[in-house]
Amino acid sequence: MAGQRKLRMGMVGGGPGAFIGPVHRIAAELDGKIELVAGAFSQSPEKSRAAGEMYKLDPARAYPDYKAMIEGEKKREDAIDFVAIVTPNHLHMPVAVAALEAGIPVMSDKPATATYAEAVELEKAVKKSGLPYGLTHTYAGYSLVREMRDMCASGKLGKIRKIAVEYLQGWLSNPIEDSGQKQATWRSDPAQSGAGGCIGDIGTHAFHLSEYVTGLNVTAVNASLLSVVPGRKLDDDCTALLRMDNGAQNVMMTSQIAAGEGNDMRLRVYGEKGSLEWHQEDPNLLSVKWLDGPEEIRHASGGYLSEASRAVTRLPGGHPEGYLEAFAVLYREFADALNSSQDRRAVKLPDTLPGIEAGVRGMRFIDRAVESSKKQSWVDF
Amino acid sequence: MAGQRKLRMGMVGGGPGAFIGPVHRIAAELDGKIELVAGAFSQSPEKSRAAGEMYKLDPARAYPDYKAMIEGEKKREDAIDFVAIVTPNHLHMPVAVAALEAGIPVMSDKPATATYAEAVELEKAVKKSGLPYGLTHTYAGYSLVREMRDMCASGKLGKIRKIAVEYLQGWLSNPIEDSGQKQATWRSDPAQSGAGGCIGDIGTHAFHLSEYVTGLNVTAVNASLLSVVPGRKLDDDCTALLRMDNGAQNVMMTSQIAAGEGNDMRLRVYGEKGSLEWHQEDPNLLSVKWLDGPEEIRHASGGYLSEASRAVTRLPGGHPEGYLEAFAVLYREFADALNSSQDRRAVKLPDTLPGIEAGVRGMRFIDRAVESSKKQSWVDF
Amino acid sequence: MAGQRKLRMGMVGGGPGAFIGPVHRIAAELDGKIELVAGAFSQSPEKSRAAGEMYKLDPARAYPDYKAMIEGEKKREDAIDFVAIVTPNHLHMPVAVAALEAGIPVMSDKPATATYAEAVELEKAVKKSGLPYGLTHTYAGYSLVREMRDMCASGKLGKIRKIAVEYLQGWLSNPIEDSGQKQATWRSDPAQSGAGGCIGDIGTHAFHLSEYVTGLNVTAVNASLLSVVPGRKLDDDCTALLRMDNGAQNVMMTSQIAAGEGNDMRLRVYGEKGSLEWHQEDPNLLSVKWLDGPEEIRHASGGYLSEASRAVTRLPGGHPEGYLEAFAVLYREFADALNSSQDRRAVKLPDTLPGIEAGVRGMRFIDRAVESSKKQSWVDF
Amino acid sequence: MAGQRKLRMGMVGGGPGAFIGPVHRIAAELDGKIELVAGAFSQSPEKSRAAGEMYKLDPARAYPDYKAMIEGEKKREDAIDFVAIVTPNHLHMPVAVAALEAGIPVMSDKPATATYAEAVELEKAVKKSGLPYGLTHTYAGYSLVREMRDMCASGKLGKIRKIAVEYLQGWLSNPIEDSGQKQATWRSDPAQSGAGGCIGDIGTHAFHLSEYVTGLNVTAVNASLLSVVPGRKLDDDCTALLRMDNGAQNVMMTSQIAAGEGNDMRLRVYGEKGSLEWHQEDPNLLSVKWLDGPEEIRHASGGYLSEASRAVTRLPGGHPEGYLEAFAVLYREFADALNSSQDRRAVKLPDTLPGIEAGVRGMRFIDRAVESSKKQSWVDF
Repeated sequence: MAGQRKLRMGMVGGGPGAFIGPVHRIAAELDGKIELVAGAFSQSPEKSRAAGEMYKLDPARAYPDYKAMIEGEKKREDAIDFVAIVTPNHLHMPVAVAALEAGIPVMSDKPATATYAEAVELEKAVKKSGLPYGLTHTYAGYSLVREMRDMCASGKLGKIRKIAVEYLQGWLSNPIEDSGQKQATWRSDPAQSGAGGCIGDIGTHAFHLSEYVTGLNVTAVNASLLSVVPGRKLDDDCTALLRMDNGAQNVMMTSQIAAGEGNDMRLRVYGEKGSLEWHQEDPNLLSVKWLDGPEEIRHASGGYLSEASRAVTRLPGGHPEGYLEAFAVLYREFADALNSSQDRRAVKLPDTLPGIEAGVRGMRFIDRAVESSKKQSWVDF
Repeated sequence: MAGQRKLRMGMVGGGPGAFIGPVHRIAAELDGKIELVAGAFSQSPEKSRAAGEMYKLDPARAYPDYKAMIEGEKKREDAIDFVAIVTPNHLHMPVAVAALEAGIPVMSDKPATATYAEAVELEKAVKKSGLPYGLTHTYAGYSLVREMRDMCASGKLGKIRKIAVEYLQGWLSNPIEDSGQKQATWRSDPAQSGAGGCIGDIGTHAFHLSEYVTGLNVTAVNASLLSVVPGRKLDDDCTALLRMDNGAQNVMMTSQIAAGEGNDMRLRVYGEKGSLEWHQEDPNLLSVKWLDGPEEIRHASGGYLSEASRAVTRLPGGHPEGYLEAFAVLYREFADALNSSQDRRAVKLPDTLPGIEAGVRGMRFIDRAVESSKKQSWVDF
Repeated sequence: MAGQRKLRMGMVGGGPGAFIGPVHRIAAELDGKIELVAGAFSQSPEKSRAAGEMYKLDPARAYPDYKAMIEGEKKREDAIDFVAIVTPNHLHMPVAVAALEAGIPVMSDKPATATYAEAVELEKAVKKSGLPYGLTHTYAGYSLVREMRDMCASGKLGKIRKIAVEYLQGWLSNPIEDSGQKQATWRSDPAQSGAGGCIGDIGTHAFHLSEYVTGLNVTAVNASLLSVVPGRKLDDDCTALLRMDNGAQNVMMTSQIAAGEGNDMRLRVYGEKGSLEWHQEDPNLLSVKWLDGPEEIRHASGGYLSEASRAVTRLPGGHPEGYLEAFAVLYREFADALNSSQDRRAVKLPDTLPGIEAGVRGMRFIDRAVESSKKQSWVDF
Repeated sequence: MAGQRKLRMGMVGGGPGAFIGPVHRIAAELDGKIELVAGAFSQSPEKSRAAGEMYKLDPARAYPDYKAMIEGEKKREDAIDFVAIVTPNHLHMPVAVAALEAGIPVMSDKPATATYAEAVELEKAVKKSGLPYGLTHTYAGYSLVREMRDMCASGKLGKIRKIAVEYLQGWLSNPIEDSGQKQATWRSDPAQSGAGGCIGDIGTHAFHLSEYVTGLNVTAVNASLLSVVPGRKLDDDCTALLRMDNGAQNVMMTSQIAAGEGNDMRLRVYGEKGSLEWHQEDPNLLSVKWLDGPEEIRHASGGYLSEASRAVTRLPGGHPEGYLEAFAVLYREFADALNSSQDRRAVKLPDTLPGIEAGVRGMRFIDRAVESSKKQSWVDF
């Protein structure tokens, strides 16, 4: 029975040159509850085999494609317990649907799909299957993101009045997709990436984080998508005003041509009584400012933090945790849920772990932002 | 002859309870080139007299109103050399015009006037008079703002692609104007403040700073002005997308209901090759990030800074200068210009010192932003 | 053959309530080259068994004590490839010696032993065995610590003139050892911890880091060891002046009664031309200050960093790595070395990985500092 | 009567090329209570005259030397109310004594004198005169230094257990005194500077700050004074362990060869319950860390700060004040005290303003540290 052993993960995507594949492997295994045992790592069978060797897998379980993996694993006693999807966006949906139809739970990289229509379809497939589906919005796994979420839910800030979320990168400042940089190439290609460039790659993270933390939903969008680098096919800079369902305004600024920035994601939330500020590049500190009183810096693992925040740290205060640890929190929550019942269809994922609903909202956001940007006006969400 | 003595300043406004009056006094006198000798500090003659005592002036020169000051000073051998205007906004124009008509140069607090129409009128008065008119956009006086301006002009960042300017305060999070807080009361009253609340008070600073540093001009505005606190008559939160004349987008976020913020003005400028980031609350550091190379932190007074930047610091590196010193730079430049010629009409203010043109643009900005916000769409500047 | 499979690790120590055991497990497995397969996790056989379950091990390999583990593994085809020692200090030496005598390589937590005499003995055992012995001075695994080391070796700073190393914690501000807190209890007990309290626990880290980064060796010590909390048996605060072999002075300040501090380790190195500053709590940034030029902030994973630094990061810039990742670097280097030859005695550990020499120096440091503090004067190293 | 007019200041020192003269002028005049009216600015009468012009003084009051100033002013109706001494150290005592003997109060730059013997003598002169004597330990004027002082006095931190004070500069990293840099030349010359180099110039500041803030007195010293730059006559690096009268240890590190540092003064104070950390280069923030609770960042001018702290800020939160403003606080306190009575001998300076006692302690500190460093051992204070 699972729980007494590690859960077995099969990965689709993540072959040579991939950034996010090894990240998923490390994150999944970090807490000692999951092991990578199989994969279809590339659309090239040779590359998939090579990746299997790199991961030190049984060669028989480095499959030439995802269908072969699903077929192959079905026949094994020690079959995979779930699939992790880490391909370019356009494959997220078909792989997820195939896994779910084969009765296999899914952890998928974001965005959930390449288009909003696909997301709606995938949602149906998830519901029909009754199986767990998790979406790795990494930043939801940070301890202090959980603290912010708890602060907002608790009402300690009063009514939320204003949100400012940013996600700034500079790595697409030059047209590096033209010279074949793998990460840039697929992200800049509508056929692999979908309708959104910057907005799909990082805008969805910013959108998700702001809803996840505040518990508020976007109801209207006024977006400006730009392709700043000449010749680029998709947007590389996206700014949007978002109206939240309690009337608050959310100012979202994302860019991949912000020269000099690394992975500068920041969230600020302003309530009636105080505010929160968090930076992903310095994730172990959270600034809480009050109208009447000193600014507080909450440090990850502090004994004064909420249960929700402390539940997801592994180290005492002052020992920095980072991106991989946040990622691993999502896998840990997924594993704990899978281990909670022998019947996969009875598994309930915790609401701290983003799922298909967040996935659909993210794709809806891209869709609405693209339309708003074309119309140069507000559109309903 | 001026130059061998300190210039004599007469102040209008700045009586008891004022914030900005004493600031102007300190700033004007800081570099030892100007002394406050006269004033019409309040619309109440008693309060004006009390202020004169506080400033240790000759009682005869604490006038009951600005007209009396202009009249009274005209008759003196040691008459004032210029007027500093530090009243609520609606008096900026009439006082400035009266001074100019009496042949007296003007240093005015911002915004230049209460409305765009007044600004156009004032511009005419300035041009007609041929006299120096300076506008105290304080932040233009910071050494590292000058460094940023030099960096942009030099082309070292390549083409400017994106600007993000913020100015966040929290002090109007509650309706303190209802309980008579002096600063809040006039700022929240359209009759004294003009058409803009937050946008007039601090939005104009943000707008100015972004144009001042980059050398670019706004050509179109898409603004969202909100009155977040119930019952407030003017906007207390203003976000805008601005199109610059080289095509770059400028994301401007200003608020006075950002609970917990003090005076958090920040500017980021992204060029093709690198970017700049500066925070007013930590003004002696400038971050310069490059696409290829480490981030640089330039420290005020560093020997490696531009001439333009080093010209306006007074202390060696590591000795922090702040708001008053920046303010004083503008007065020093005004004084040096006045001292450059015995003929006031021959005086040319340096282009580092904001003047009537910046004043008119600022008022135009308020006007355009209010219209854009009403229409919920882009408007030309 | 190793290399085609993961290396098998047996752990001694790290049972229920331990902090550092799970850290070693995560660190060892993080890069996919090692797996924990066996252990003697506690001096209580029941607790060892429970830990084995927690780690999801084959119950047969959760041994009652380290001797049983060495014996038991000897008989297996799939025997462990090395031992990780994570016990309180007084067991480091006996376990290491037993493993080495059984022909098994060792990775040990620091300090190497409980006393200097033991360290000398252990060094003999290591040399006699000819086997690899690594010491987990965690901080040596940080990417930017490697960058500092490279900077010092390159001569870019000129001659090193001054070092300041700090390690401040506050968790022993109260006598928590009296109420049975496990971490505090053994660390405060000379029988388990050795002659040094704060100096052994964190002083050795600070000492090691300063030698590791600068490539200089301490030649004389003037230390002040204090037991600040009444009743504490060992030092909880240790300050020392250290003379380095090139004449530079090293100011070392460590404390465990620095109320409010978490794990605040900082290193500053001053050369003739510039200086370095790094904080463990913010490990992805390195400040490099020059006599003539702006301060540089080097960000982990920057393309401009040295080979040595870039070799040990896993993520692109802006994706924070932390304590576990640094720890994992040491295990990765150990694994790569073991995989480099089928003959364990032919394995050469890289000089980036601390070994027995560093271990002996660390124990010597404790010994000399204790003597200096008693004498209240300088002593030779 | 004073109080209805500005107090009149005569300055000794501060001529062309001086750093600290103009600083004193700005600081003295900043709050509108003092004006510079006379001076003996240089040992060269021509230079003194030139400085008088620069300061726009009546040429008759730019005296050739301090004796002439004292004589000259005595005869005037509008004589100076006090003398500000801003010369190199060796002149502090003779000028102060001459002024006091002439019945004139004194504000002196630090250190009080060139030697401890002189300090004792000066103390006698001050007491004999019964006149106010202030010492410009600038950093005592910062608002958040006052907050720290209040925190320590209040007992909120519990018993103070540990202090760490640093003052690091890099400007003497090269032997610039050999090429005639004015500031370096006199500071490196024992005849002008006294027995201490770095320790006299900045060590006295660090020493003073730590006593001033904590209210504790040093009782023993173990110092290490180094002349790191070859050929330098005085120390350029000074580290000391200091024992405070409550048993706490104070670790003091100062240097002028810390390449890349500007004016990096930092103070940390650790009590039983929490700690304080303040950096002079970022003076508007104070970190307060608690054993149980989040770190607090107190911002200058915060409504939650102590009376003592708020009394010395001029601007609302978020408007940075710096070095000149801190300096001006001392002058303001001196002026307010002078204005408190028409009888100068009845004037009582507030204990927030450093005076002759602090001056004697500072000189004693240099004396004891030099002896300790020679002996390489602890000496009583």
